[in-house]
Amino acid sequence: MNLPAPLKGLAGRHLGTTEDLSDAELAALLELARALKKRPLGRELAGKVLGMVFFNPSLRTRASFEAGMFQLGGHAIHLGIGQGVWKIEHREGVVMDGDATEHLKEAVPVLSRYCDLLSVRAFPIGRQWDVERADPVVSMFQKYASVPVINMESSMYHPCQGLADLATVQEKLGRPRGKKFLLTWAYHPKALPTAVPNSALLAVSRSGVDITLAHPPGYELDPDVMTRVRANCKRTGGKLEVTHSFGRAFADAHVVYAKSWGSLKHYGNEAEEKKARDKLTGWQVTPKEMKKTDGGIFMHCLPVRRNVVVADAVLDSPASVVTDQAENRLHVQKALLVALSQARKGRR
Amino acid sequence: MNLPAPLKGLAGRHLGTTEDLSDAELAALLELARALKKRPLGRELAGKVLGMVFFNPSLRTRASFEAGMFQLGGHAIHLGIGQGVWKIEHREGVVMDGDATEHLKEAVPVLSRYCDLLSVRAFPIGRQWDVERADPVVSMFQKYASVPVINMESSMYHPCQGLADLATVQEKLGRPRGKKFLLTWAYHPKALPTAVPNSALLAVSRSGVDITLAHPPGYELDPDVMTRVRANCKRTGGKLEVTHSFGRAFADAHVVYAKSWGSLKHYGNEAEEKKARDKLTGWQVTPKEMKKTDGGIFMHCLPVRRNVVVADAVLDSPASVVTDQAENRLHVQKALLVALSQARKGRR
Amino acid sequence: MNLPAPLKGLAGRHLGTTEDLSDAELAALLELARALKKRPLGRELAGKVLGMVFFNPSLRTRASFEAGMFQLGGHAIHLGIGQGVWKIEHREGVVMDGDATEHLKEAVPVLSRYCDLLSVRAFPIGRQWDVERADPVVSMFQKYASVPVINMESSMYHPCQGLADLATVQEKLGRPRGKKFLLTWAYHPKALPTAVPNSALLAVSRSGVDITLAHPPGYELDPDVMTRVRANCKRTGGKLEVTHSFGRAFADAHVVYAKSWGSLKHYGNEAEEKKARDKLTGWQVTPKEMKKTDGGIFMHCLPVRRNVVVADAVLDSPASVVTDQAENRLHVQKALLVALSQARKGRR
Repeated sequence: MNLPAPLKGLAGRHLGTTEDLSDAELAALLELARALKKRPLGRELAGKVLGMVFFNPSLRTRASFEAGMFQLGGHAIHLGIGQGVWKIEHREGVVMDGDATEHLKEAVPVLSRYCDLLSVRAFPIGRQWDVERADPVVSMFQKYASVPVINMESSMYHPCQGLADLATVQEKLGRPRGKKFLLTWAYHPKALPTAVPNSALLAVSRSGVDITLAHPPGYELDPDVMTRVRANCKRTGGKLEVTHSFGRAFADAHVVYAKSWGSLKHYGNEAEEKKARDKLTGWQVTPKEMKKTDGGIFMHCLPVRRNVVVADAVLDSPASVVTDQAENRLHVQKALLVALSQARKGRR
Repeated sequence: MNLPAPLKGLAGRHLGTTEDLSDAELAALLELARALKKRPLGRELAGKVLGMVFFNPSLRTRASFEAGMFQLGGHAIHLGIGQGVWKIEHREGVVMDGDATEHLKEAVPVLSRYCDLLSVRAFPIGRQWDVERADPVVSMFQKYASVPVINMESSMYHPCQGLADLATVQEKLGRPRGKKFLLTWAYHPKALPTAVPNSALLAVSRSGVDITLAHPPGYELDPDVMTRVRANCKRTGGKLEVTHSFGRAFADAHVVYAKSWGSLKHYGNEAEEKKARDKLTGWQVTPKEMKKTDGGIFMHCLPVRRNVVVADAVLDSPASVVTDQAENRLHVQKALLVALSQARKGRR
Repeated sequence: MNLPAPLKGLAGRHLGTTEDLSDAELAALLELARALKKRPLGRELAGKVLGMVFFNPSLRTRASFEAGMFQLGGHAIHLGIGQGVWKIEHREGVVMDGDATEHLKEAVPVLSRYCDLLSVRAFPIGRQWDVERADPVVSMFQKYASVPVINMESSMYHPCQGLADLATVQEKLGRPRGKKFLLTWAYHPKALPTAVPNSALLAVSRSGVDITLAHPPGYELDPDVMTRVRANCKRTGGKLEVTHSFGRAFADAHVVYAKSWGSLKHYGNEAEEKKARDKLTGWQVTPKEMKKTDGGIFMHCLPVRRNVVVADAVLDSPASVVTDQAENRLHVQKALLVALSQARKGRR
């Protein structure tokens, strides 16, 4: 496959966040994804092996990467840490006399010899946000791998989800400029990570769409992410509005993207965080809110808790595009795999 | 591959039970299985992805589907629920504030976008037979999938095992008409599901063989299954006899198929069921019983508990065809995969 | 692929230990591995299925076998016992009324029908060394399989590691004769198996290198292994020295291979063994020891506990070849798979 010029520069690179991509690279990647959606089978990844390392559960990510590699002639190996794979240490300089039998400083270089690409999922563990926001596990992978590393969701980012989100917005809205994209917080019984809302905002803010972010006070996203989102909006001509009003946020929206996350203010203090969150069960997307939109579509990254985050009546309505959105994971990831694995000259 | 006429109608269909197949479809499927047994490698499933969703453990099913897909150019993805995959809800309309983070109403449509075929294993959970006999999980898969769904064992049915059982009977007996097929209950320390005996009877009753079903009083199979078995026997000219005598059932049998299952009478009442079952340890197939047969072969779906369900001396004798029977799983499943995945026009 | 004469005799054979290979077979196998390292992709295993059965965790073994099968056109199925696969019995003649639902006497013949090759990992369980040293699980696989069985680490042997160790010694030292290979015991918080040191010694003793084995008193390896190592050294002209001095063993070494293992003297008595071992934390390879060597390289089978078995400063120095050593697992295993799976005439 002869890739367009902007994609050639992606050969051998890592993908940690969509912010790693220039505007031209991002546009070319999404165009390749659209082409692969139309023509799903090929040989672009013939002979290539992807090593997928999961520290956390997965359905879509696992299945879509594995299907995508196969459809283009490659193969994905699923390595679930703790599920038949050694416990792994990632901190530098420690005396390894505890549970972990292996260090990423060995595991990652070794996997780089067996695999042409690596991907890793490592959720935050809920202790110290200042440590976890640096994405220590994914950073170690990127540092010690000699092949491209794809972030399959870290503490801060879920770039494949962000790419699928942006692809879906473009697919459904056509020209996003002047349209309203609402990302609304929703209630959930657990304090979920912020990687998905971060990545959704970082990605869709590249499109020129007008963004409204609605969340209760105390549920602010990481300030560095918001700074980048603001910069993206400014550069692409989109507006950014942040509101604490669940009710009013839906007015005239073309897209409603619901997502729950835990308060970073109470990060590491589970009980305190839960006490605050449990007052917010009213933040559930129901037909009442959807009626206020301008024929808005409903998006969610999945998995979603029905009748907690969003009502059955919304998810089961024609407004819901969650399945199309999940399908786009496959296409954007295939584009990414093709772009990153190009021209791996002189290996082995 | 140009498939014979009766198989063309299977394109895109689900397989929940062998009763979903007409006599002509069943015959053609088994003929295709025999052809694939002779010529195991091919490209009939080139580019095709099977998503296998397991709620319960598996060895044969997992390995035979995965090998079969590969041998015909396809790929199988193994998704073990709870083993690195989110816990999944299947009930309609519930408020998902418990353990399950995902609903089949999302998971199945999404997997349908990544996979060309789905297969699912969901054992009964031992609470209410009237709920579980409707195969709620497999039914949800069939309802919400946009690709064919193969039942890899539900509460009621294990059609791939049934197909392998019938293929084995035909292979070993030649013309089954007038021969005696004994399905005998056997003791087991746990109350096992009834899907295997149901499916064995439903499948072999399509062959015209004479069936004897032996079980202790109280171990009756589901009445709807028995009605269909009776109808099959009648249509194909086979006899059906049900007996409570373990000793006499073996006389002149050409096939002895041993299988344990829990009493449906005590379904949901574990202690009561166990009390009844523990008196029945004498229902173990030993050489003494096999001597009464007409040179009968010994069948079992596996896994089997040696010296509990059947004596070493039977399993290790030339009469045992359990390995051939298990091998036939591979061939019938490949035939099924080829037939169901035909001509998937206009997808993606 | 037209294999050289010595490899033709490997068709259909099992590999339990490198001692199963003649000198000519071993040399030819390593030459094939070097060829496959230069040209990693091929079709030598087209249509072939490897069934990998793991009773214990794995990272390198799992990933390298799966990548290797794919790179040569085949497919590896990962079956983790207890991870979605039935619990399995291996003892002959038992009444299976406990946890295990399946016996190897069924599982292995059945997997032989689905797979062209099998591989198995079964660590010792720490009870009775006289029972476990016979490698009961791997022996059962070899006895009941109708396809080649590769030992992926048993109580006694890890032949694929031994092959990779030997390949690495040859690659790094050129002509091993007259060079000094030190295998040194190291401290570890757990009593690890002896399969790796056994296999390292059995393999490198085939090269003519001079071997020094350093361990604390009471950490003698199995006497049968040492007898074979001694015989190999004698035949190939290498020296063998055993010492209890950690400090002096490193002098003028060209290779330092560190590995921990539990004392066989206290096998089955965990508390006693731990008491003895915990006095030996000084057996850690640090730059101080490496300075005594003749520019020696550092080897370890991985996974390794940093700053327990070996200091960061050694592992992170250019002397460490552990990643190259692990990479060689891939190449020797591919050579092995190609050789063992040749000419499988008349199957199915």
